[in-house]
Amino acid sequence: MERQFDLDLGQLKQKLLAMAGLATSNISMAIRALVERNEKYTSQILSQEEQINSLQMEIDNYCLELIARWQPVAADLRFLVSAIKINSELERIGDLASNINEATIRLLTEPKLKPLIDIPRMAEIAQKMVNDAIDSFVKKDSHLAQTVLTRDDTVDNYRDQIFRELLTYMLQDQTTTPRALQLILISRSLERVADHSTNIAEDVIYLVEGVDIRHHIERK
Amino acid sequence: MERQFDLDLGQLKQKLLAMAGLATSNISMAIRALVERNEKYTSQILSQEEQINSLQMEIDNYCLELIARWQPVAADLRFLVSAIKINSELERIGDLASNINEATIRLLTEPKLKPLIDIPRMAEIAQKMVNDAIDSFVKKDSHLAQTVLTRDDTVDNYRDQIFRELLTYMLQDQTTTPRALQLILISRSLERVADHSTNIAEDVIYLVEGVDIRHHIERK
Repeated sequence: MERQFDLDLGQLKQKLLAMAGLATSNISMAIRALVERNEKYTSQILSQEEQINSLQMEIDNYCLELIARWQPVAADLRFLVSAIKINSELERIGDLASNINEATIRLLTEPKLKPLIDIPRMAEIAQKMVNDAIDSFVKKDSHLAQTVLTRDDTVDNYRDQIFRELLTYMLQDQTTTPRALQLILISRSLERVADHSTNIAEDVIYLVEGVDIRHHIERK
Repeated sequence: MERQFDLDLGQLKQKLLAMAGLATSNISMAIRALVERNEKYTSQILSQEEQINSLQMEIDNYCLELIARWQPVAADLRFLVSAIKINSELERIGDLASNINEATIRLLTEPKLKPLIDIPRMAEIAQKMVNDAIDSFVKKDSHLAQTVLTRDDTVDNYRDQIFRELLTYMLQDQTTTPRALQLILISRSLERVADHSTNIAEDVIYLVEGVDIRHHIERK
């Protein structure tokens, strides 16, 4: 029976990895749409969002089923409850991709403001954080989870840098204001993608090391 | 023994209500600080945030303990898992109060931009949504949870109205831009408070009616 539980956990991990793959793929397409100024990714983003949403419900139900069936305690129970929480984080990352895509569609009605350098870089770091956070969960690798936490500062620096640069645009030429605002909001969405990854990583560290670091270390 | 389980659930509900009380109190103080242009609330906000953070860990552990001890299935298990998810939502509402307070502190270094009417109204609705969402959970009242969902549109309308108004300020006088941006970010934080409440309300409806509405109805 023990072996069957491990097989069930393996299946759960596969589902979470699939969910993470869809969420980061949507972030990636949303940013590509922004950089290439192309709406063609929208339908795929929407169809993947549907998949994310049904996968979220499937994973939640699967976890509840496993808890009810195996009545796990201690680490196994914690793992399944963490999976449910992580599942929500991934779904919200998917939502943020859609927010970014909507802002992009608004931006496409106006001329290009500036070449985008920092936003794609910030997006790349955020996506890598999502992937590493999920990998750290699946492999119960608290060291990898720690590296996710340290990258949050880099993301915050990008957020501040992007904000200052776009503020300068607005102050020099106020016709840029609506476009600059949309780009600021996009950078805030990316910041939140990174925040969701750190939430996942904090859960992993608790799970593996038994130390709840959520509110013990000061990270800004 | 059944009776003891009910007593345990009662205690869990008290803890969640306390958590919600602290989170909405912090939102309320953060908005009062903004409207009154007064930093004096900061220390209380910070001390309540500490309380929220330790309560979050306490509630998580309590739920895991109850699942391990009682090995509930079906509705009882779902209730405890929902409590863990709701606990996270409340903690993030607390974080948003702190974000608002930080934006306020930045705003206090500059002269007042305009009298604030819509932001306090939006905040009031968002806080009421949080309280009603938690009440609907504690009382397993899916009707009340439904009313939370319908108010999300009002909040989104406020968000759009505030955005348009502040954009007008920026376009008319660009010296207002940095202040207007902070106010826009504050309104986005309030929107997220409302979003967290709808997440809670959706969980309650699932719990009570057994219908997962998270991705079945289109609300924007």
